[in-house]
Amino acid sequence: MPHRERLKVFSGSAHPELSNEIANYLGMDLGDRVIKKFADGEVYVQIKESIRGCDVFLVQPTCPPNVNDNLMELLIMIDACRRASCRSITCVIPYYGYARADRRTSGRESIAAKLAANLLTQAGATRIVMLDIHSLQTIGYFDIPVDHIYGETVILDYLTSKDFSPKDLVVVSPDVGGVPRARAFAKKLCDAPMAIIDKRRTGHNKAEVMNLIGEVEGKVAIMLDDMIDTGGTLVAGAKLLRDQGAKDIYACATHAIFSPPAVERLGSGVFTEVIVTNSIPHTPERDFPQLTVLSVGNLLGETIWRVHNDNPVSFNKL
Amino acid sequence: MPHRERLKVFSGSAHPELSNEIANYLGMDLGDRVIKKFADGEVYVQIKESIRGCDVFLVQPTCPPNVNDNLMELLIMIDACRRASCRSITCVIPYYGYARADRRTSGRESIAAKLAANLLTQAGATRIVMLDIHSLQTIGYFDIPVDHIYGETVILDYLTSKDFSPKDLVVVSPDVGGVPRARAFAKKLCDAPMAIIDKRRTGHNKAEVMNLIGEVEGKVAIMLDDMIDTGGTLVAGAKLLRDQGAKDIYACATHAIFSPPAVERLGSGVFTEVIVTNSIPHTPERDFPQLTVLSVGNLLGETIWRVHNDNPVSFNKL
Amino acid sequence: MPHRERLKVFSGSAHPELSNEIANYLGMDLGDRVIKKFADGEVYVQIKESIRGCDVFLVQPTCPPNVNDNLMELLIMIDACRRASCRSITCVIPYYGYARADRRTSGRESIAAKLAANLLTQAGATRIVMLDIHSLQTIGYFDIPVDHIYGETVILDYLTSKDFSPKDLVVVSPDVGGVPRARAFAKKLCDAPMAIIDKRRTGHNKAEVMNLIGEVEGKVAIMLDDMIDTGGTLVAGAKLLRDQGAKDIYACATHAIFSPPAVERLGSGVFTEVIVTNSIPHTPERDFPQLTVLSVGNLLGETIWRVHNDNPVSFNKL
Amino acid sequence: MPHRERLKVFSGSAHPELSNEIANYLGMDLGDRVIKKFADGEVYVQIKESIRGCDVFLVQPTCPPNVNDNLMELLIMIDACRRASCRSITCVIPYYGYARADRRTSGRESIAAKLAANLLTQAGATRIVMLDIHSLQTIGYFDIPVDHIYGETVILDYLTSKDFSPKDLVVVSPDVGGVPRARAFAKKLCDAPMAIIDKRRTGHNKAEVMNLIGEVEGKVAIMLDDMIDTGGTLVAGAKLLRDQGAKDIYACATHAIFSPPAVERLGSGVFTEVIVTNSIPHTPERDFPQLTVLSVGNLLGETIWRVHNDNPVSFNKL
Amino acid sequence: MPHRERLKVFSGSAHPELSNEIANYLGMDLGDRVIKKFADGEVYVQIKESIRGCDVFLVQPTCPPNVNDNLMELLIMIDACRRASCRSITCVIPYYGYARADRRTSGRESIAAKLAANLLTQAGATRIVMLDIHSLQTIGYFDIPVDHIYGETVILDYLTSKDFSPKDLVVVSPDVGGVPRARAFAKKLCDAPMAIIDKRRTGHNKAEVMNLIGEVEGKVAIMLDDMIDTGGTLVAGAKLLRDQGAKDIYACATHAIFSPPAVERLGSGVFTEVIVTNSIPHTPERDFPQLTVLSVGNLLGETIWRVHNDNPVSFNKL
Amino acid sequence: MPHRERLKVFSGSAHPELSNEIANYLGMDLGDRVIKKFADGEVYVQIKESIRGCDVFLVQPTCPPNVNDNLMELLIMIDACRRASCRSITCVIPYYGYARADRRTSGRESIAAKLAANLLTQAGATRIVMLDIHSLQTIGYFDIPVDHIYGETVILDYLTSKDFSPKDLVVVSPDVGGVPRARAFAKKLCDAPMAIIDKRRTGHNKAEVMNLIGEVEGKVAIMLDDMIDTGGTLVAGAKLLRDQGAKDIYACATHAIFSPPAVERLGSGVFTEVIVTNSIPHTPERDFPQLTVLSVGNLLGETIWRVHNDNPVSFNKL
Repeated sequence: MPHRERLKVFSGSAHPELSNEIANYLGMDLGDRVIKKFADGEVYVQIKESIRGCDVFLVQPTCPPNVNDNLMELLIMIDACRRASCRSITCVIPYYGYARADRRTSGRESIAAKLAANLLTQAGATRIVMLDIHSLQTIGYFDIPVDHIYGETVILDYLTSKDFSPKDLVVVSPDVGGVPRARAFAKKLCDAPMAIIDKRRTGHNKAEVMNLIGEVEGKVAIMLDDMIDTGGTLVAGAKLLRDQGAKDIYACATHAIFSPPAVERLGSGVFTEVIVTNSIPHTPERDFPQLTVLSVGNLLGETIWRVHNDNPVSFNKL
Repeated sequence: MPHRERLKVFSGSAHPELSNEIANYLGMDLGDRVIKKFADGEVYVQIKESIRGCDVFLVQPTCPPNVNDNLMELLIMIDACRRASCRSITCVIPYYGYARADRRTSGRESIAAKLAANLLTQAGATRIVMLDIHSLQTIGYFDIPVDHIYGETVILDYLTSKDFSPKDLVVVSPDVGGVPRARAFAKKLCDAPMAIIDKRRTGHNKAEVMNLIGEVEGKVAIMLDDMIDTGGTLVAGAKLLRDQGAKDIYACATHAIFSPPAVERLGSGVFTEVIVTNSIPHTPERDFPQLTVLSVGNLLGETIWRVHNDNPVSFNKL
Repeated sequence: MPHRERLKVFSGSAHPELSNEIANYLGMDLGDRVIKKFADGEVYVQIKESIRGCDVFLVQPTCPPNVNDNLMELLIMIDACRRASCRSITCVIPYYGYARADRRTSGRESIAAKLAANLLTQAGATRIVMLDIHSLQTIGYFDIPVDHIYGETVILDYLTSKDFSPKDLVVVSPDVGGVPRARAFAKKLCDAPMAIIDKRRTGHNKAEVMNLIGEVEGKVAIMLDDMIDTGGTLVAGAKLLRDQGAKDIYACATHAIFSPPAVERLGSGVFTEVIVTNSIPHTPERDFPQLTVLSVGNLLGETIWRVHNDNPVSFNKL
Repeated sequence: MPHRERLKVFSGSAHPELSNEIANYLGMDLGDRVIKKFADGEVYVQIKESIRGCDVFLVQPTCPPNVNDNLMELLIMIDACRRASCRSITCVIPYYGYARADRRTSGRESIAAKLAANLLTQAGATRIVMLDIHSLQTIGYFDIPVDHIYGETVILDYLTSKDFSPKDLVVVSPDVGGVPRARAFAKKLCDAPMAIIDKRRTGHNKAEVMNLIGEVEGKVAIMLDDMIDTGGTLVAGAKLLRDQGAKDIYACATHAIFSPPAVERLGSGVFTEVIVTNSIPHTPERDFPQLTVLSVGNLLGETIWRVHNDNPVSFNKL
Repeated sequence: MPHRERLKVFSGSAHPELSNEIANYLGMDLGDRVIKKFADGEVYVQIKESIRGCDVFLVQPTCPPNVNDNLMELLIMIDACRRASCRSITCVIPYYGYARADRRTSGRESIAAKLAANLLTQAGATRIVMLDIHSLQTIGYFDIPVDHIYGETVILDYLTSKDFSPKDLVVVSPDVGGVPRARAFAKKLCDAPMAIIDKRRTGHNKAEVMNLIGEVEGKVAIMLDDMIDTGGTLVAGAKLLRDQGAKDIYACATHAIFSPPAVERLGSGVFTEVIVTNSIPHTPERDFPQLTVLSVGNLLGETIWRVHNDNPVSFNKL
Repeated sequence: MPHRERLKVFSGSAHPELSNEIANYLGMDLGDRVIKKFADGEVYVQIKESIRGCDVFLVQPTCPPNVNDNLMELLIMIDACRRASCRSITCVIPYYGYARADRRTSGRESIAAKLAANLLTQAGATRIVMLDIHSLQTIGYFDIPVDHIYGETVILDYLTSKDFSPKDLVVVSPDVGGVPRARAFAKKLCDAPMAIIDKRRTGHNKAEVMNLIGEVEGKVAIMLDDMIDTGGTLVAGAKLLRDQGAKDIYACATHAIFSPPAVERLGSGVFTEVIVTNSIPHTPERDFPQLTVLSVGNLLGETIWRVHNDNPVSFNKL
C-alpha cells in the first residue's frame, strides 16, 4: 500500500469542527465511520472503510460536558480499529479529561489521569498526541509514545502580534501550582517578570485571603493558566490585580472548559481580553465580547503529518 | 481483623436503592464514600473509611440512561479501592451495560462487552457478580472469577405463585436468539411447551413479516426475554400472539431498560402483566398499571454473603 | 524484502491436504519445516527456512481425533516462529477445537474456548483466521484481530446449484441453540421458512421427547448445523422430520467431526445427502454413499491473500 | 474456613496411583472431580466440590505416552479452578514434559519448556512443585514460585541401604550433559569418584565412537541420569563399562519414560539393577526382572503439607 | 501462622542504620539475609530464613552514591522473595532515586521515575512505602498501592519546638517548582507568609539573575525543598535573602543528597541551621557544624506496623 | 524512509571502542546521544537525533566493573528510545551480566539472569543479540527473539591458524559444568579428545582435591571456558595439567572479566597464551605478556547488518 494511503484520520463525535480543520490542513477527507448513541445510552461505532495495515489517527478530546461519553467512545473506537487489523492507532486528544486527577490530595482517591492512561493502552492505543497537559508527569502515565504539543505557542504568537511594550508586561500565575508554567511563558513573552497569587485560608472559620506576591502596578497583566473551568479563581485574582493597580488584564488558557458560571464571570468586564483555543468545542452560548478563540487545527494537522512521516514534532516548542 | 469486619459494601451512584436493600439483607451499613460529578462532568470518588485488608463489594449496574458515566464511575471506584490496599474487589453488576455488543454483526465494529470486561480487569477488579447476562459466553470475557446469578428465579417464583394450569401455558421467545433462554425457562415452568416468533424481511423493499412457529391458541403466553429495551419487538410479537388466539399475554424480563417509547408501548393494554426486576432503578415516570417490579436485592445480598464466606452460590439455579 | 516474498504459509501436521490446496490457490510452495512426534509423545518443530521479517500463516485445524496434539503443535509452531523474528503470525484454524466449551453449563467448569484463545495469544499469535465458529462471541475471546470466514457460503453455493423450488424448501434447526444460524441460512436460501426441533425430557425418569416446531410436510428439509459430532441428535431429528412428512432430508454442516458411530448413523439412509466441508481432514473410513465433501481451500487461500495484501475479507459474507 | 479445610488435592487423569499415595500420606481424600475425554478427543473437567478460598493442589505429571493430553488437561483443570474462586493453585508436576526442549540446538526451534511454563502461568497457576527437572534453569522459566524437589534422594537412600564398599564405587555420567548431576550424586554417595562417557562421531560417514573418560575397572558402576527414554545411550554406555571391566552396573534415574524398545534393552541383562521412581506411572508391560520402582508419593505428600503450612521444603536436599 | 510472625523486615545494604532504627521501633530483629557484591560487581542476595506466607518489608533507599547498585539490589531482593513464596512484598523506599526524572524536559529522554516504578512492579513488589516524593504524580506511576509518608512532619515538629514568633517567619521556595510544597509547609508553620526565588537567564550570553518575589526583610527565612543535591541553588538563594535583609536563614529538606561540594557550601556560614532527615545515610564526612539530622526511623516503623495490621497510615499528614 | 536510513546504532557508555568497531564495519556513524552520570549517581540519557520509525540497535555489554550502572543505563536508553517512537529496539549485549545467576543453588536466592531478562523486556526491548551466553537456557528467559552469536568462532579461527598437530591436542574443561561447551569446541578443533578437571572437597575440614579425568601427557592442552573471572580455578587446573605432563597450556574464553587477582594469576607463566575477546573492554592495566585479545566487532557488525536486512544470522555457527 502506498505510504500516503496508509494515513487515515477519523473523528470522534466530541469535536467534528476541529477534526475537519485538521483534515483540511492535511488535504484529505476524514475517514468514514458511524458513531451513534442508542436510546439506552450505549455508544455504537463502525468503521466504514478498510483500515487494514493503516496508521489510524483518532481525533477526540475527552472534554466536557460529557467527559465519560467521550472517553468511552474513544475506547470503543480504538477497540473497533484494533480488531480491524490496522497497523497503528494514534489517539489525538486535544483536551485530556481527568488531567487534574493526577495525584491523591487526600487518602483513598483514584488517580483517574493514570486510570484513563491505562484504559487507553489496554484498549489498544499505540501512541498518544496530547496538548498542554495539566502536569507533564502525566506523559509518564503511558508507556506507549506520547507526543506532547504546546498549544500555548498559538497564544504566544497572538500576544506577540499585539506589540506590548516589554517593560509594561507582567505574567501572573493565578495560583501556586501554575508558577512553572507561568514562568516558562514569561520567558518567551519578552522575558517578562512574574507575579503570583497565593490564596489561603488563615484559620478555621476565617475567610480565604488572596495575597499577591510580586508587583503589577501600572502593568499589563497576563494571567496564564492551562485551563479555565468555572473561572472563579481567575476572576478573584483579576480583581486583586485591579486593586493592586494593574492597567490591563488578559486571561490566557489553552483549554476553555467554561463550566457555569464561567461565561458570566469572564464576560463581566474585569478582563480586557480572554484568549483560549478550540481544544474544546466552542458553542454560541459560550461566547462573550472579550473572548478570542484561537485554533489549534493546523498545529495538530502538522503534528499528524509529521508523525505519519516519522518526522520530529519538535517544531512546536514553548 | 475479624473476618466479619473485612466485608465492606459500597454503592455507586447508579442504584442506591438496590444497594440499600442489599445492605439491609446483610444487616450492615453501606460503606462511607463520596461520589460527585464536577461541573465539568468528571467523576470524583473518595472512600471515606479504611478498607485495608478488606473484601470490598462495589454495587453498580452499568445501566441506562448514563451507561458510560456509570461504567467510568465504577472504574474510578475500583481504582480508588485498589490504591487503598484492600484485599479484593468484587464488582456486583446487576445490569451489565454493552452486554448485547458481544460480537460483530458486520465488519469493523467493537466488541464492547469484551472491552468493558478488559477495562474492569485492568482497573483492578478481582471478581465479578453479574445477573442474567445477555449471552453466557460473556463470562468467558473475564479471566477473573465470575459468579453469574439467575435473576429469572425471582420471576419464576412469582409466576409459580399464580398457579397457572400447566396445560394452558406456552412460553414464547420473542425472537430466534432467545430460544435457549425461553426453553430453559419453559422446562422450569411446568415443562410448558414453547413457541417462537421469527421476524423476517422477505426481500428488498418488502415489509417485515412476523411468523409464529408453534401453537398459542387459547393459551396463557409467557413471553420471556432477558431485557426489554424499547419494547417494539415484544409488543409486535404480542399482537401476533393475540391474533393467533392467545388468551393472556405476560411479558417477563430481568432487565427493564425501558427506552422510550417502551412505557407507552408496554402500558397500551396488550399485556396482562409486565414482570421485571429492579436490576435497573425504577422511577415513577417508568410506571404503568400492568407493571410488576420484583426485587433482586435479597438474591444479591445472599450472594455477597456467600462469596465473602467462601460458600457456593449454586443455591441460585434456573 | 519484496512484499510478495514476505508471505510464508506453513502447514501443521493436522491437515496437509488442505494446506496444499491453499498453497496451490496461492501459486506458491508451503514453507519448509520439520514436525515430528518423538517416541515419548513430545512434538518437535523446526522451521527450515528463514522467516525474518515475514508474515507467517500457520494452517492447522485443532481438530479430532487428536485435538490436544494439534493444539500443542500449533502453539509450538507459534513459539518457534516468534523466536525466529518473523513480523506477524496468523493462525489459520479451519476448525477451532473446544469451540463448544464456550461457557459453563454448570459450576466449576473450564471455559476451554477462552483458555485456548489465551494460550494462542500468549504463545505469540498476532492474528486468527477462523471458519464458522460455534458461537460468534468466541471472536471476543481474542484481543488480537480475528477474521471470521463463513464456510457456509460454500455449502450455500452447492445447494443453490441444485435448483430446488423455493416453495418446497424448509430449513430446520436440529436444536434450539442453532436457530439463529438456521435463520440466517434460510434467508439466503430463497428466504425459505424455518422449523425447529426441540428435544426435551418431560420429567425425571421420563424419556426424552422431540417436538417439531414449524411445518415440514411435503418439503425438502435442509437440516443445518455448524458441526456434526456423533450425529445422534441430527439423525433423531431427521426421523422426526420423516415422520412429519418431509419429502427429502439434507444434512449440512461445515465441520465433520464424525465421532463414532456418526458414519453408521449418517449413512443409514435417512438422509438424501450429507454435505460437509473439509475443514477437518476426510479419510476413507469416514466415507459413505450420501456424503459430499466440499473444499474450503480456495476460500482460505483467497482470505490469506487478502489479509497479506491488507485487502478486506468481506467478500465472504453469509 | 479452618486452615486444614483449605487444603484440597485433586488428581488429573495421568497418574491416579501417585495421587492416591499422596492423599494417603496426607490422611485425606482426593478432591471430587470429573475428567473425561469426549469422543472427539476434547477434555472435559468439572470440579465437583466447592473450592472457594481454598489452596488447591493439582497432581499431574505431563508425562508420556500422551504428553499433550496431560498438559492440556492440567491447563483446563487450572482454568476451571481459577474461575471457581480458589485462593491458590499449585501444580504438582512430578514429571515435566518438554523439559529437554529447554534451548535451541539449531535455529528456528521452539523452546517448549519455556512455552509450557508460560502456558501454565497464563492459565492461572500460582505455584509449581516439580521433581528433578532436566535443567535447573527451567525453574527460571517461571516467575511464580517453584519448589524443586530432589527425587534422587529416594534413590540415594535405596542405594545407601545396599552397603556398597565406598572404594568399589564409581558414578558414571552417560553423557557430557549429565556430568554436574552425576558429580553431585557422587559426592553424596560416599564421595565416590566419577567417570564420563563421551559419545562422538569422528567424521562424516564415520560411525559414532564412545570414549570412557575415567576409570571403572573392577568397580560397581552407578550410571545416573535424570530420565531414561529409549535407553539406547544408557545400554551402549553400559556395554562400554562392561568392556572396560566394571564389575556390576546399576542404572538409576528419576523418570522412567521407557519409550520402546527401552524395556527390551534395559531387561537384556547388562544391568544388575535398574532403579527408577514412579514419577511416571508404572504399568505391567513396562516391567522386567531387574527393575526396581521407588515411590515419590511420601516425598510429594510431605512437600504439599509443608507448602500448605508455610513450612520450608528444604528437608529435601540432594 | 500467627499474624505477628508474618511480619518480616529485611534491610538492603544501602542504609542498615535506618533499618535498625525501624526494627528497634518494632521491637523485633531484622530478617537474616546475605547480600554481597562479587568481585565482578554483581550483587548476590540470599534470604536466610523462611518467609513462606509472610508479609515482607524491604527497607532500601535507592540513594546516592550508588543509586543503580541500590536499585538493582532492591530488585534482586524482590525477586528472591517472590520466588520464596512470601505473601506480599512491600518496598520501603525512604529516598526514591530518579524521582526528579519524572518528565521529559526536552525530547527523547527517558522518564526514569516511571521506568523505576515499572521495574519494581515487574520484579514483584506488591506495595510501596515512600517518603516525600519529588512530585506526587509519581505515585500514579504505580498501579500497586503506594503509601506516601510525609517526612516533613518531622522537620515541622522540630521547627515548632523552636518557638519562633509567627510574625517573624517567612517560608521561602528556592525555585518556582517548589512553590506548592513551600505553601503547604507555610500553612502548617504558623500560617507563615511565603516568598519565592525566581532564577532566570535574561538573554543569550547574559548572566543568570535571581529575583525575589515577596518580602523577607527582618524575617527568619525558612527555605524549604524536598532535597538538597549540590546545594548551589539553595546557597545562591540564601545569599539573595541575606541581601534582602533576612535575619536568620534555615534550610530544610527531607533528603540530604549532598553531592560535592554541598558540604562546603552549606557549611560556609550562610545558614543558621541546615535541617535534614536520615532518609539517606549520614556519614561523618558529610557533617558540618550547622547540620541537624532528624530521624525518620520511628515514622517508618510506625507505618510498617500499621500497614501490617491493616490500619490507616493517615496519622502522618503534612 | 529508505530502509538504509532506518538503521541506527547507539553506543552505551560501557564499551565505546567496540561500538566504534561495529560502526566502522557497517560504514556508518554511531547515533548521536548524551549519556552522563550526575553527581548523585543517576544516569541521564538523551537521544540527540530523530529515531522515529527506525530500527535502533543499542550496544552495551552489562559488564564489570559497574554491572548495575551498565544495566540501568541500558534500561534507561531503551526507555528513551521507546518513548521516541522508534520501530524496534535491539539490545546488542556482548557480555550479559548476571549470566551465571541462572538458577538457585540453594533456597531463597534470586534468579538474576531471568530478572534481567524481565527488566529488559519490560523496559521495551524488542530483540536481543547476545554472545556466548553462560547457559543456553537463558535464551528462553526471553519471549522476544534472541539471536545468540558464537564468539568462540573467533577463537577457533585463531587457534586453527596456529596449525597444531591434531594428535597433540586435548581440550580441557576446567570444571564439570563446562563439559558440553568443551566437547562442542573439541569437535570443531580437529575433533580433539577431551579431559575434565573435577574439583571436590573430600569431607568436612578436608582440603579440596582436583582430579583429572582423561589424559593430557605430552599434549597441547586447550582449556576452554566461557568466561575468566578471578582465574583461580583455571590456574589451579593448569597446574594440575602441568603436573600431569601437559606440554603447553592455552586458556581460551570469550569473556575476560578479570576480577583481581586475575591478571597476576594468568600472567604468572603457567599459560603459553591466554586468548580472550573484547566482549568486555580491555584496559592497559589488564594487560600481561601472554594475553591475546581478539575482536568480536566485525562479528557483531555483520550480525546487526543481517538482522536489519532480515537475513539469517546462521553464518555464525560453532
